[in-house]
Amino acid sequence: MLSQFLLTIAFKSALSVGKSVIGIGSGSGSSDDDDELLPTPDIPDLSDPITGDPSEDLNPINEEMFSSWALFILLFLLIAALWSSYYLAQRRIRAVHETVLSIFYGMVVGLVIRLSPGHYIQDTVTFNSSYFFNVLLPPIILNSGYELNQVNFFNNLVSILTFAIPGTFISAVVLGAILFIWTAIGLDGINISFVDALSVGATLSATDPVTILSIFNAYKVDPKLYTIIFGESLLNDAISIVMFETCQKFHGKPAKLSSLFEGIWLFMTTFTISLLIGCMIGLLIALILKHTHIRRYPQIESCLILLICYESYFFSNGCHMSGIVSLLFCGITLKHYAYYNMSRRSQVTIKYIFQLLARLSENFIFVYLGLELFTEVELVYKPLLIIITAISICVARYCAVFPLSRLVNWFYKAKSNGSTTNASGSTEEIPYNYQMMMFWAGLRGAVGVALAMGIQGEFKFPLLATVLVVVVLTVIIFGGTTAGMLEVLNIKTGCVDEHDESDDEFDIEAPKFINSSSSRFGSSPYSDFNAQNAASSSRAELVPDFPPLAEEMENEFNASSPRISNVQNIKESIGSLFKSDSQWFQTFDEQVLKPVFLDSNAQNSVNSKSPTPNQNGTFSPNDNSQ
Amino acid sequence: MLSQFLLTIAFKSALSVGKSVIGIGSGSGSSDDDDELLPTPDIPDLSDPITGDPSEDLNPINEEMFSSWALFILLFLLIAALWSSYYLAQRRIRAVHETVLSIFYGMVVGLVIRLSPGHYIQDTVTFNSSYFFNVLLPPIILNSGYELNQVNFFNNLVSILTFAIPGTFISAVVLGAILFIWTAIGLDGINISFVDALSVGATLSATDPVTILSIFNAYKVDPKLYTIIFGESLLNDAISIVMFETCQKFHGKPAKLSSLFEGIWLFMTTFTISLLIGCMIGLLIALILKHTHIRRYPQIESCLILLICYESYFFSNGCHMSGIVSLLFCGITLKHYAYYNMSRRSQVTIKYIFQLLARLSENFIFVYLGLELFTEVELVYKPLLIIITAISICVARYCAVFPLSRLVNWFYKAKSNGSTTNASGSTEEIPYNYQMMMFWAGLRGAVGVALAMGIQGEFKFPLLATVLVVVVLTVIIFGGTTAGMLEVLNIKTGCVDEHDESDDEFDIEAPKFINSSSSRFGSSPYSDFNAQNAASSSRAELVPDFPPLAEEMENEFNASSPRISNVQNIKESIGSLFKSDSQWFQTFDEQVLKPVFLDSNAQNSVNSKSPTPNQNGTFSPNDNSQ
Repeated sequence: MLSQFLLTIAFKSALSVGKSVIGIGSGSGSSDDDDELLPTPDIPDLSDPITGDPSEDLNPINEEMFSSWALFILLFLLIAALWSSYYLAQRRIRAVHETVLSIFYGMVVGLVIRLSPGHYIQDTVTFNSSYFFNVLLPPIILNSGYELNQVNFFNNLVSILTFAIPGTFISAVVLGAILFIWTAIGLDGINISFVDALSVGATLSATDPVTILSIFNAYKVDPKLYTIIFGESLLNDAISIVMFETCQKFHGKPAKLSSLFEGIWLFMTTFTISLLIGCMIGLLIALILKHTHIRRYPQIESCLILLICYESYFFSNGCHMSGIVSLLFCGITLKHYAYYNMSRRSQVTIKYIFQLLARLSENFIFVYLGLELFTEVELVYKPLLIIITAISICVARYCAVFPLSRLVNWFYKAKSNGSTTNASGSTEEIPYNYQMMMFWAGLRGAVGVALAMGIQGEFKFPLLATVLVVVVLTVIIFGGTTAGMLEVLNIKTGCVDEHDESDDEFDIEAPKFINSSSSRFGSSPYSDFNAQNAASSSRAELVPDFPPLAEEMENEFNASSPRISNVQNIKESIGSLFKSDSQWFQTFDEQVLKPVFLDSNAQNSVNSKSPTPNQNGTFSPNDNSQ
Repeated sequence: MLSQFLLTIAFKSALSVGKSVIGIGSGSGSSDDDDELLPTPDIPDLSDPITGDPSEDLNPINEEMFSSWALFILLFLLIAALWSSYYLAQRRIRAVHETVLSIFYGMVVGLVIRLSPGHYIQDTVTFNSSYFFNVLLPPIILNSGYELNQVNFFNNLVSILTFAIPGTFISAVVLGAILFIWTAIGLDGINISFVDALSVGATLSATDPVTILSIFNAYKVDPKLYTIIFGESLLNDAISIVMFETCQKFHGKPAKLSSLFEGIWLFMTTFTISLLIGCMIGLLIALILKHTHIRRYPQIESCLILLICYESYFFSNGCHMSGIVSLLFCGITLKHYAYYNMSRRSQVTIKYIFQLLARLSENFIFVYLGLELFTEVELVYKPLLIIITAISICVARYCAVFPLSRLVNWFYKAKSNGSTTNASGSTEEIPYNYQMMMFWAGLRGAVGVALAMGIQGEFKFPLLATVLVVVVLTVIIFGGTTAGMLEVLNIKTGCVDEHDESDDEFDIEAPKFINSSSSRFGSSPYSDFNAQNAASSSRAELVPDFPPLAEEMENEFNASSPRISNVQNIKESIGSLFKSDSQWFQTFDEQVLKPVFLDSNAQNSVNSKSPTPNQNGTFSPNDNSQ
């Protein structure tokens, strides 16, 4: 009662004082000095056709106020999206997904902002590709790399790379060709060169993992399908960015055959070097942690780890390499080596911070996409072009997924020729229903929109509008029907990974339902095969945990779900592939890399399997009283 | 060896490809379209005298690259600052402080950027008051509120409010008057009105807590002095912001006596309403957490808590209230009520994230200040004005600290008249050496610089330059000599707070030295009187911890350091004040507020003192096997 009363008073007073202050500010016309040194995050576009001169009626104080309101609205949308997410999880509603709702909220608020008078808030909430690439994207990629299930990822590497590299290429070329032919017909009054059409094709070839993977998580879809789609969408973001930038370099030049090879060479170099930069920086962190005492100061340690990871992104981008690839592999290396050299507190901090930042960024991106549809004033919508593009991306995805699946199946068949057939019930590596699901999983995301903002030339705005609408359509249509398709296609769901049970030592309030989405909503059940060790070590012993030996990992992995024979079989088949394909790396890793990059404490413990007190002798193995 | 080899190759290739790509980009002149839709965080100032038209030789790709390098440099400076901090802690060097080094690094790199050709990076790394207020400041304030030692803070509330409110006012008026008189003489060719002089006075009246408090932490200075300085500098940021904005509203108008009362009224309203907004939002979070099951989804829970806290800041700013005050009290309320309704995982996540963000922001701000000295191209340095201002801030601080200390002493003397005299060895609440230390602790910080960017009128740039130089000077001079002054003034140091020992359950690697700064570097020993409970509950029992009853708190508080008689005595005297002053609120809090805002689980546990299983029955009190 009291609080309600006070709340009412406070809000009323706040509003009235706010209004009177606004009145003073805008009425007094005290903006005799156009304050150039007080830029706001988004300076209103001076060439904006409907706004005129934005500094006309804005003094710095009002500017500050509008930017506060814009941020308030954005955060409010985020809160609404997260709240819906909680509500959906709580009610176990799976038909509607949180990302679809985020876009929807964004659209509603975008419409309100568009219709309301004044333009300052509208300018401030407009999608900004620089923010997207420098602020929103890095946490998502870093978290993906860090939470990646390395065993599954590297076991399916052949499939992932096949779909990611030639797949994206095929998709971009098919899409580019269709668009080029359509625009050459000239019904829309748009006429673009083949290179520009290819640019648009590249922007629309980046698939988005967020929606599809949270649905997969909710249904606990077969880890293999999960891993392939996850890996593909992670890598094809990077690949479409590199393709797009390569295309942009040829913008305005005549297309030659030599350009193709130059482009491919540029692409291969960029990818490889970016990967190396990422791994190097990850290893650098491991070495720094190993050879210094910085773990004694966990606050500084976690800050430094976070900063150095980001450095890999900006360094790579600064060298015109692919920051996404670097960051992804930096995250993977970090988890594989540096993780074991961190203090326990930093392990926890880093994990939670990566998760929180990634989640906020993901929701933000979808809210932004919805807002953009209405707050971007220069967009030119060409309905025919949009329809043609929407159809073409399905065609392009079809041309990429099905032939390449056949190739992958052929490759595995040829490889396993002579050995026992695949035990997973089907003789094919990627059966038809998986192929269909992969086709369906081809949602396009914010990376495409952000790239499309870099399109040059006179047809920039129609093309940008087309990309934006198509992206939103795919999220709503494919994202909204994924749950249904899983049933129609008879995809295996409910694959419980027992390692998941102890993913988090603090997560005690979540009810444990078998086969339920709600209890583990938002964290990937396939993401962390060391989770059990991490959780158990932190509880009573407070000993840094160390990677189990390869054989143990293998055993643990195979023994994890004895009751579910299908999963078991798949895992066995993965295990056998793993043995044959990656044996050399595993041996090298155990015998050369880990001794170099892991702390000697970790090494001892891997060998002796008993916790050793650290150099200060502050704990004993079962010290609960500390 | 292998890694070094690969590293060399990768870097060489990266650089060569990077160069060739830059060559292509800038040589081909493909920027036929000035991309208005790809704004970067800091659009180069179009009216910049030395840059000309920035879009002349920048296509979007190069723009993206420069912005990556600018971010790379900023993060690198941050890494350098944090690394120095580690090094200083490790070597136990206390003479040089990390913030001084941060400024120094910023200056060196700023100089290099200034001297190197090209202006894009220079434009991007320039201090931006909008970023400062919307991105860098909130985490620091929120963390301060959250980590505040509430018992100490409210016990010293009279002193804190006295120094914060009339103190800042006196300081601003004295400084404004001196500056007005000096500029009226006209030696510098500057002529400003009294209101503008008062604006500058207000910007230079915000003291900065970061440097001084980390030194105090390192030396474990008497909690009372610590709390007063901490509380003063927290509140006077808010107060100088409100004063500055009030002055700005009178900019260009003739000063009248009625303006003074109008200003005071505006100030009082703003402060009160902001405080209420902050408390309301904190209580709102507590109620949401209490009445929903959101703690079952800790990821969503932590995101929501963080977002709602930020909403208090932006909402308050949007209503032209003081976001800082709201955020501070939102943090305090959050810790006092909502903390106990959170899941354990969110408690940990929120704590670590607040700490990490605050630390990054603090370092960033000092790096930025150093950079600003050289990268801001429009500054006009007036040496005489700078010297006069530097002297004036000492005079102003003197006029604020010493008379008000006398007032506080008189107040406490009058209050305790008849009862036993203060047992702390001195008969005064604030003895002379404490007053001198408070005078010395008047470093000015980034809030002043950020405010100074909002100065209007033709003398903006000389005034901004003056504020910037004076701020840097105070940090270097006062910050560099604080450690020495502690010894000269014979201030009590080495006050070990036993609660501090178990501040963090994961912090096992830190060596425990009595009276050593290095083991607890960077976390306040006075900040969390519930830390022991929090830490112990998390270890084996996994039960949410609850606030101890008031009497227990009192007892614990008094019993915490039996060996150090002085501290004990001070605490006793505080305790007696506490009893008499805040008894009514404490009773009200226990009997009305806590039952309303805390979870019923919490209430039961406070009464029965035995952990109860939650509604899912998933744990028992000593469940180690989970």
